[in-house]
Amino acid sequence: MTVREAAAAKAAQRNLRRMDRRAVVHGMADALAAHAAGILAANEQDLRDAMDLDATMLDRLRLDRHRIDALLGSMRAIAEMQDPVDRVLEQRTLQNGLYLQRRSVPLGVIGMIYESRPDVTADAAAMCIRAGSAVLLKGGSEAIATNTAMVGAIREGLMRAGIGRDAGHLVQLVGRERLPAMLASSEIDLMVPRGSERLIALVRRRSRAPVLASGGGNCHIYVHEDADMAKAIRIIVNAKTQRPGVCNAVETVLVHQRVAREFLPLLQHELYELRGIVLRGCARCQRIITCEAAAAADWRTEYLAPILALRVIPSMAQAMRHIERYGTGHSEAIITEDKEAQDLFLRDVDAAVVYANASTRFTDGGQFGMGAELGISTQKVHCRGPIGLDALVSSKWEVHGDGQVRA
Amino acid sequence: MTVREAAAAKAAQRNLRRMDRRAVVHGMADALAAHAAGILAANEQDLRDAMDLDATMLDRLRLDRHRIDALLGSMRAIAEMQDPVDRVLEQRTLQNGLYLQRRSVPLGVIGMIYESRPDVTADAAAMCIRAGSAVLLKGGSEAIATNTAMVGAIREGLMRAGIGRDAGHLVQLVGRERLPAMLASSEIDLMVPRGSERLIALVRRRSRAPVLASGGGNCHIYVHEDADMAKAIRIIVNAKTQRPGVCNAVETVLVHQRVAREFLPLLQHELYELRGIVLRGCARCQRIITCEAAAAADWRTEYLAPILALRVIPSMAQAMRHIERYGTGHSEAIITEDKEAQDLFLRDVDAAVVYANASTRFTDGGQFGMGAELGISTQKVHCRGPIGLDALVSSKWEVHGDGQVRA
Repeated sequence: MTVREAAAAKAAQRNLRRMDRRAVVHGMADALAAHAAGILAANEQDLRDAMDLDATMLDRLRLDRHRIDALLGSMRAIAEMQDPVDRVLEQRTLQNGLYLQRRSVPLGVIGMIYESRPDVTADAAAMCIRAGSAVLLKGGSEAIATNTAMVGAIREGLMRAGIGRDAGHLVQLVGRERLPAMLASSEIDLMVPRGSERLIALVRRRSRAPVLASGGGNCHIYVHEDADMAKAIRIIVNAKTQRPGVCNAVETVLVHQRVAREFLPLLQHELYELRGIVLRGCARCQRIITCEAAAAADWRTEYLAPILALRVIPSMAQAMRHIERYGTGHSEAIITEDKEAQDLFLRDVDAAVVYANASTRFTDGGQFGMGAELGISTQKVHCRGPIGLDALVSSKWEVHGDGQVRA
Repeated sequence: MTVREAAAAKAAQRNLRRMDRRAVVHGMADALAAHAAGILAANEQDLRDAMDLDATMLDRLRLDRHRIDALLGSMRAIAEMQDPVDRVLEQRTLQNGLYLQRRSVPLGVIGMIYESRPDVTADAAAMCIRAGSAVLLKGGSEAIATNTAMVGAIREGLMRAGIGRDAGHLVQLVGRERLPAMLASSEIDLMVPRGSERLIALVRRRSRAPVLASGGGNCHIYVHEDADMAKAIRIIVNAKTQRPGVCNAVETVLVHQRVAREFLPLLQHELYELRGIVLRGCARCQRIITCEAAAAADWRTEYLAPILALRVIPSMAQAMRHIERYGTGHSEAIITEDKEAQDLFLRDVDAAVVYANASTRFTDGGQFGMGAELGISTQKVHCRGPIGLDALVSSKWEVHGDGQVRA
């Protein structure tokens, strides 16, 4: 990342404004499909070079025909989404005759900083181009061969779609040695880090551009005193076991004391006996079922693993206080048949997504009907929740006058 | 600012959610009116203590009955504005029956860091409370007596409006010695610096919370070859002289070469001869009218003074390139009778506000019909242009289910 490279990205982005970006993104997908064999070969090389990665990391790094197909499907869906640019967001005519329109416009240059998963490379490139912006991609160095092959294919697709020489500027791969320059660049309009808490904290601290970050998900489900037990079991089993390693999986279940004696044995049967989930309970919990003891640290831990913390709680107010204290503002749920309790929980719990009687696993752009996403924002400004295409644009005020001056 | 103080602000903010904030802000204004004499006396003291300030700074620091009245009017208008909280921004029902609502919610705690003007104290407190958030106010130390008196009155108003002991936590004045702690706080959801470029750069660099900044305004007016000369003169005179010291005043006028010989003498007459504005022109400009020579630095300078830079330009494309290179993305205008030229300029010039045939001086929340504002954002994320009440809230997704789990 030199000043010239970032400036070239911005210049290329201006020309993108005039293109049919739906067709451009389809062209990127076409080229990726045509180069699938080369991309898989590059991925093989990354996997051979990455012998010190653990199994989870290797799994995230690995591409196969099936994943390439999923990725192409995602790019085609992004191409077909409603254009987020050039939409009139507000309009009004003032008494002096001035006509105002606030219109969505591309951000300009978006920086993505992420770790091993090479599918992010294709998704991020497709989303940023669809939203009219250039993108600088700093992927993990363990995926360098895969990412280089993918970006090569994407650029070929851009060229064929009529972008010409700008292709190389619109989608740029940033090497590790250029990360400090990327963080210091004044040409980047939005920085999107995706990965570990450590990576996100580094980007927050060092980025000159504003940051849109996906924080961790220490998610809770609170089982209220009048909960439908069958629903509660079904939802908790889903939220814990459907995919334990992701940010919207549940980590702590809070159970109202009036139903603990009935509910906890059911939960133990479904989670521990049938599915092998490790349960860590508070002292009151341990008086009802046999489980490991939860320490204070458990309330703060995002396990991302087949472990669940359990706490018996004397009231809904206490449950909400627990969530306020230990939650990360990601996804929080209540199970209750009481409409008033639902409304109170949904209104007062401060998180990106709050649920009544549903699994926290729905926190996802695709599930929400927003299409692809770049992560789940847990910050409160610019975008909160799934980061879809609409979060990748800015707006401006256009004012049409006929000689008006201020009095 | 200790951890306890910021946490207390957040706790108090939660209770504010349940109050009638329209009445609360009227109560703040009532109390400010009742304490007007004490506030003016405190302001006298600040003015006596501030002997080393220049005339402009003294003027910004000074309050009088007239300014207090204006300030009360502004607070009452803020009270009467549509509630920015609890609005449904999006809603949809998914195929699985889940009902989603994205609803506006308070940010939580807003930090304001500003310089001498004590009217910001009242405006910021009223806007933040109206939007359901607590506010930490770091005003200029030269206004400390005035700000202390104002915040005392505001808290009394909060108490009377039924806020009780939370009043002292909801609106807090932060002394200079606590600024580092305020910048490092993790309890602040949005930091709004307002003042010099130096202050804003410091806050951008050091704030842990996301920053919403008002940048400088190096604003341009481009006079196209088919401009209506009378409109152009009227608009430029207004944009330069109506209040030269503000960010939306014009600093450089670009004139198409085909009309320069006709237009520049008219402009010289109106601005220099009739109004004493100093003109600094490019070499081509100096061949047409007598004026000072513009150096390269002039294109970059936000004068905030009765000085105007002038440049003769060979084409509209060149004018847009000049604006792209030297503009700060604040307010940019074209004067032309050609609809196509208007549309091209409005679409392609990248700024918070773009004008066709109107004065740049309209860039203002009040003028735009948005009511009070906390400044003009020149950044592209969260809010761009006048920072009104709507920029002081966040949103969350509320999901209503009936036992749904993810497949």
